[in-house]
Amino acid sequence: MAAVATDPVRLTDLVARLGGELLGKDITVGRVASLHNAGPGDIAFLSQQRYRNLIASTSAGALILPPSLRDATALSRIICDDPYLYFAEVSRLFSPPEPVIAGIHASAVVEQGAIIAATAQIGPFVCIAQGARVGDGTAIGPGCFIGKNAVIGARGRVYANVAVYHDCIVGDNVIIHSGAVVGADGFGMAQKDGKWLKIPQTGRVIIGNDVEIGANTTIDRGALDDTVIEDGVKFDNQIQIGHNVRIGAHTALAGCVGVAGSAHIGSQCTVGGGAVILGHLEIADHVHISAATLITKTISKPGTYTGAYPFSEHRQWSRSASVLRHLDELARRIDAFEVPSSATKTTRKPRKGAPVRPAKAGPVRKKG
Amino acid sequence: MAAVATDPVRLTDLVARLGGELLGKDITVGRVASLHNAGPGDIAFLSQQRYRNLIASTSAGALILPPSLRDATALSRIICDDPYLYFAEVSRLFSPPEPVIAGIHASAVVEQGAIIAATAQIGPFVCIAQGARVGDGTAIGPGCFIGKNAVIGARGRVYANVAVYHDCIVGDNVIIHSGAVVGADGFGMAQKDGKWLKIPQTGRVIIGNDVEIGANTTIDRGALDDTVIEDGVKFDNQIQIGHNVRIGAHTALAGCVGVAGSAHIGSQCTVGGGAVILGHLEIADHVHISAATLITKTISKPGTYTGAYPFSEHRQWSRSASVLRHLDELARRIDAFEVPSSATKTTRKPRKGAPVRPAKAGPVRKKG
Amino acid sequence: MAAVATDPVRLTDLVARLGGELLGKDITVGRVASLHNAGPGDIAFLSQQRYRNLIASTSAGALILPPSLRDATALSRIICDDPYLYFAEVSRLFSPPEPVIAGIHASAVVEQGAIIAATAQIGPFVCIAQGARVGDGTAIGPGCFIGKNAVIGARGRVYANVAVYHDCIVGDNVIIHSGAVVGADGFGMAQKDGKWLKIPQTGRVIIGNDVEIGANTTIDRGALDDTVIEDGVKFDNQIQIGHNVRIGAHTALAGCVGVAGSAHIGSQCTVGGGAVILGHLEIADHVHISAATLITKTISKPGTYTGAYPFSEHRQWSRSASVLRHLDELARRIDAFEVPSSATKTTRKPRKGAPVRPAKAGPVRKKG
Repeated sequence: MAAVATDPVRLTDLVARLGGELLGKDITVGRVASLHNAGPGDIAFLSQQRYRNLIASTSAGALILPPSLRDATALSRIICDDPYLYFAEVSRLFSPPEPVIAGIHASAVVEQGAIIAATAQIGPFVCIAQGARVGDGTAIGPGCFIGKNAVIGARGRVYANVAVYHDCIVGDNVIIHSGAVVGADGFGMAQKDGKWLKIPQTGRVIIGNDVEIGANTTIDRGALDDTVIEDGVKFDNQIQIGHNVRIGAHTALAGCVGVAGSAHIGSQCTVGGGAVILGHLEIADHVHISAATLITKTISKPGTYTGAYPFSEHRQWSRSASVLRHLDELARRIDAFEVPSSATKTTRKPRKGAPVRPAKAGPVRKKG
Repeated sequence: MAAVATDPVRLTDLVARLGGELLGKDITVGRVASLHNAGPGDIAFLSQQRYRNLIASTSAGALILPPSLRDATALSRIICDDPYLYFAEVSRLFSPPEPVIAGIHASAVVEQGAIIAATAQIGPFVCIAQGARVGDGTAIGPGCFIGKNAVIGARGRVYANVAVYHDCIVGDNVIIHSGAVVGADGFGMAQKDGKWLKIPQTGRVIIGNDVEIGANTTIDRGALDDTVIEDGVKFDNQIQIGHNVRIGAHTALAGCVGVAGSAHIGSQCTVGGGAVILGHLEIADHVHISAATLITKTISKPGTYTGAYPFSEHRQWSRSASVLRHLDELARRIDAFEVPSSATKTTRKPRKGAPVRPAKAGPVRKKG
Repeated sequence: MAAVATDPVRLTDLVARLGGELLGKDITVGRVASLHNAGPGDIAFLSQQRYRNLIASTSAGALILPPSLRDATALSRIICDDPYLYFAEVSRLFSPPEPVIAGIHASAVVEQGAIIAATAQIGPFVCIAQGARVGDGTAIGPGCFIGKNAVIGARGRVYANVAVYHDCIVGDNVIIHSGAVVGADGFGMAQKDGKWLKIPQTGRVIIGNDVEIGANTTIDRGALDDTVIEDGVKFDNQIQIGHNVRIGAHTALAGCVGVAGSAHIGSQCTVGGGAVILGHLEIADHVHISAATLITKTISKPGTYTGAYPFSEHRQWSRSASVLRHLDELARRIDAFEVPSSATKTTRKPRKGAPVRPAKAGPVRKKG
């Protein structure tokens, strides 16, 4: 992919640049590869003890290993505290981003009043509406639409067929993958005589610096105020962000996550794939939400939160699930054993812990 | 956004037009804003008692309030039964839709036999295939594809990069957001010698009037008959509608909902975000399905239905989940207490309520 | 749709071509239709006994029926073992694919070094980057982007607005629906000083022959090695496939499924809609995963696996869910009855079956 800087590098040069301790012969490597597919000119990494047995069979020329594995092989190796991070840094050395070739493709439509930096690259069939701006060194791929008065910052990369609606602001060093949609209308409606009345969505989407937005991810504009994505947030593919959501700096969301309107997620959080976060709630910094978990209320304490049904062989599931549906009844029967004279106790006394908040969340989220 | 009708308006004019009772000074407002961000020239609303304390700190010039809050402030205020609806109507006054500028962009490809209304707006890089029709006052955004013989009704708005496949019919006043796909093939296959044999999907998608379709939502064409979306249905983003689904009038689906083939959903229903509705079932009118709930069988009674795992701190979840997997065993042990002489009772007698229907639903849904 | 081969056909001709036994009059049919909408010139099918009563009211000219229904009607009928498969084959006779019209649209951009087969069709506003190849008889729809050195095999159909990133390889007879994205970056990042450091994704996506990819589905390129989709795999819409996933031949995934990085799914599997499969695990051949199920660990035995919360009326759910949160406590109370002298037993002795593996899966999946 990359045309630059892919010359082979000596291990001593890597260590001089990135730290770590070199053990074994100082060879030259030209590529990062997986343990499985690495050849003699490649460097591979291993961070977990449990894959230790893979070392014996690798053909890699050199390895990146944690201190606990320093003596696990006679191959050339760099010992460091975080082999995964080290691998990331070496990878970045060997695969710098595709260069940006300044210029506007002849087929592109740039409306009046749009301002394109001289160093930006605008691909074929791009449409940049009036008053929009594209910053220095940013590449806009084929078929993208940048709406009226929208701003894309410097050194960004917008892949093919992305749509950024009017007035949205995207910071510097932002990567947006194909099919992502930034700034479509939030889902705001009021009911009137049994019909839905659309509420104009007049807020914007404001995206900070160093954000990455995965393929086909959608981030809705705010209803009145803005939807805000802070610096360093990373979105995987097919994520849905509702209107007026706020996501704190350096939070990462895995694929297929849905965040409903006006949810505020803190910084340095992680959200596992397929999780759903309801609207109008707050999630503190440093919260980790497991895959496929539904968050129905505010989380004010850092930690890991989970709510997924444990899978099992279908018949076993079926038997347990049929009991689950009437679990309250089971609890009452146990109460009856413990206090035989008060068989209805459970129905009056709440069980330990807060009762479960209804997850009912209709599709329309009101503000105010 | 809007170029029209955003002149400031007196509160007495609003009341004359939209009803409600004006209390306090008759000032002029020029914008709807949130309580938090409103300034002296803005009108804000509050519908829920629990946010009452926000009134004290707002800088809004005027408020829209429910009768229960009529004396909560000395600010200019309009008292009405449904402040959220009132806010919606005022919002619509201040933010009318972007005007449509009639004409076909020079770059657009309009194939022979396609009929574009003289008042329609066709953006850059739009491709309108032969025999397709676009109605009066409809705007088709950049990069859209309207397939052969497809119809887009009047006064619609189709944002950038939407695809509408051949023969699909879209009604009047329909909004389709970027990346939505209408009429791709349904997922219909038969098995033959361990391979999948594709079944041609020859039905269409028929969409009524006043429908809104969110960004990256997909609505599959029917296998033989049509997929039907009735008037006034509202789809949020990233919804998947399988072939031959029917959705009743004025039903609203929140983001990331999936509806499998041949499910029929009634009118005036709501479906919460991330819910999954299996195929070949019926859901009555006025049913409300909670977020992240899997619907596995027909629902014939109006009401709210839920089936999400309550989240908790991860370790607590882990302890409960390990019991859940063998909940049937727990139930048998309780049976043993109640009728010590018949320890196997549970395995014979079905627990109260219908047994849980297998959710197994392979990916291919057969008709007939 | 189709211009070819839709001439009416005699039932004896169908039987001669596709097998089965003809009962009743040898009429001519011109279309496959549903039982409900079929007319006298149409053939319909019925495979399930429970819909038997629909036969009485159909206006179809002929039926495809299983042996068990051979005497259920006096209409012309073809009796065969698998009416659904038979219907599929007849459907394919009547609705062959849209013909491909060789040629490159004048508006398309084909960069230097790209090789387009003379029999391929390249639509308006397509961009084919340098070194890319499009095979014999393949149609590329309007607005598609085929990246540098990417390959699309022969006899494929790529609908409007698809993006295939650089270096990805797509086999023969592959259908890709609108909005699908093949080869966007996998979600690979390392943490450094509380920020995320992007890891270049230098692998590819390799897609076999006879694959179908639904609308808005996303398949990420590998981090170092490739993401691999084997022959005959069928993807419904809005599926997310993470980097370095491998999916075995003739496996089918229903809509909205998410598969996290480095998961390996066997061949001839099915995955129900909305299921989530975590990363770095293996699923054996012939495994069937139910809709909305979260798979958290390796499955090495064929069978059907389920893990969805059974839905119920909201209040009933709320009562059961509040008990579920503290199910471990309930189990301990039962222990106390069984062994009154050891009330803390449950906390020490693992319940039957393996403890539940944490589903916590942060969004970043490491290799090695």
